[in-house]
Amino acid sequence: MNIIITAGGTSERIDDVRTITNSSTGRLGFTIGTVLAEQYGRQIETIDYLHGLRAAYPVHAKIQPVAIEGVLDLQRELQRLLTTEKIDAVIHAMAVSDYLVHEVTTLDRIRGTEDPENKADLSGNKISSEIDDLVIHMKKSPKVISKIKMWNPAVKLVGFKLLSNVPHEELIDVGHHLLEKNSCDFVLANDLAEISKDYHWGYLIHKDKTYDTMETNEEIAGMIAKKILASV
Amino acid sequence: MNIIITAGGTSERIDDVRTITNSSTGRLGFTIGTVLAEQYGRQIETIDYLHGLRAAYPVHAKIQPVAIEGVLDLQRELQRLLTTEKIDAVIHAMAVSDYLVHEVTTLDRIRGTEDPENKADLSGNKISSEIDDLVIHMKKSPKVISKIKMWNPAVKLVGFKLLSNVPHEELIDVGHHLLEKNSCDFVLANDLAEISKDYHWGYLIHKDKTYDTMETNEEIAGMIAKKILASV
Repeated sequence: MNIIITAGGTSERIDDVRTITNSSTGRLGFTIGTVLAEQYGRQIETIDYLHGLRAAYPVHAKIQPVAIEGVLDLQRELQRLLTTEKIDAVIHAMAVSDYLVHEVTTLDRIRGTEDPENKADLSGNKISSEIDDLVIHMKKSPKVISKIKMWNPAVKLVGFKLLSNVPHEELIDVGHHLLEKNSCDFVLANDLAEISKDYHWGYLIHKDKTYDTMETNEEIAGMIAKKILASV
Repeated sequence: MNIIITAGGTSERIDDVRTITNSSTGRLGFTIGTVLAEQYGRQIETIDYLHGLRAAYPVHAKIQPVAIEGVLDLQRELQRLLTTEKIDAVIHAMAVSDYLVHEVTTLDRIRGTEDPENKADLSGNKISSEIDDLVIHMKKSPKVISKIKMWNPAVKLVGFKLLSNVPHEELIDVGHHLLEKNSCDFVLANDLAEISKDYHWGYLIHKDKTYDTMETNEEIAGMIAKKILASV
């Protein structure tokens, strides 16, 4: 069996020294990779482990790490793997930016009130530090998760939804909506307010909207590994 | 002798999961801290090591690490140390954001063309992923370096200037301008185009605009340590 895990966060470059990053640590993906490689190693041939630049990857003979910077890099690599390799499951835990940097500009320029005699200098590889009202204009990024089953309809897919401090019912609703919209087999929903060093509540939502409840990182990883292996 | 080193990059929060970060690794500050603690340990009592969240710090009995998130956190901690402790020198290698997040909004709202029947939802702790044209409006951050000699006029100050792919003469000019503007004693100027795994060109500019030239991280650290210790 061949599995893809995505973990950590994407980064979108603003200029040569500044980026917008999703602050995911990649800890959950790391634990899932470790559990699969160590506890289910006999059933697994390879794990392609696509990780954000700041996320660590488990070092193991079955794990092939691939460093991913932005959303478009992730899309390219997933498409390549899913259309050219025999992949059985994708565990898509990466925090993917919802937005790409479209343009770096100024408030005056957007409003059409820029003084033509005193234009802001936005050329060069590093943005000037002397602009009064800097504007980073962003546009929606492609929804990579929605393409996974298009590239390979037979693959099993686990989606992830992280929200911040919402009612439990809303968390399950939003997670199940993600599942239906992207033809996921499971979605792991979790809430920043229920994550600390000592616990990590997670809800593995099924197609029929029932869900398993886990209380730690390790329990979540174990449940996802078990369900994925049983479903392939 | 008591020294402050700042290293790594600051991060400004956009919401609970997204940040704008300066992608500095903190490698140069790390090497400077290591050289000072290991080679000049007898002359040094403590090094307060203010580092960005993603930058490592040297582990050493004389080094007191302090984790710094945003520009305002850096300002608060530097002001506290420089106005209440006996500090002899500040080596200010941190990549400090030139901008703070002022507001997260939309293009339509800025232009005044938002449909009142269909307002973008920007409430909550995590920005919606369904906005067509998201705008991050930023304003200039306080210039922390300009305040260091105001808080403590007797302190020795090393500033840092990193540019990207500019002519050598411009690099020295910009570095010397930074020195004069902020009453630095030295400025280390460097250019991304002259930094790789194997080399790191650096120019330690003096008040009279002469400069020392170094070719590696270690040479830069050694030169800064030597000059600072001789000047205090």
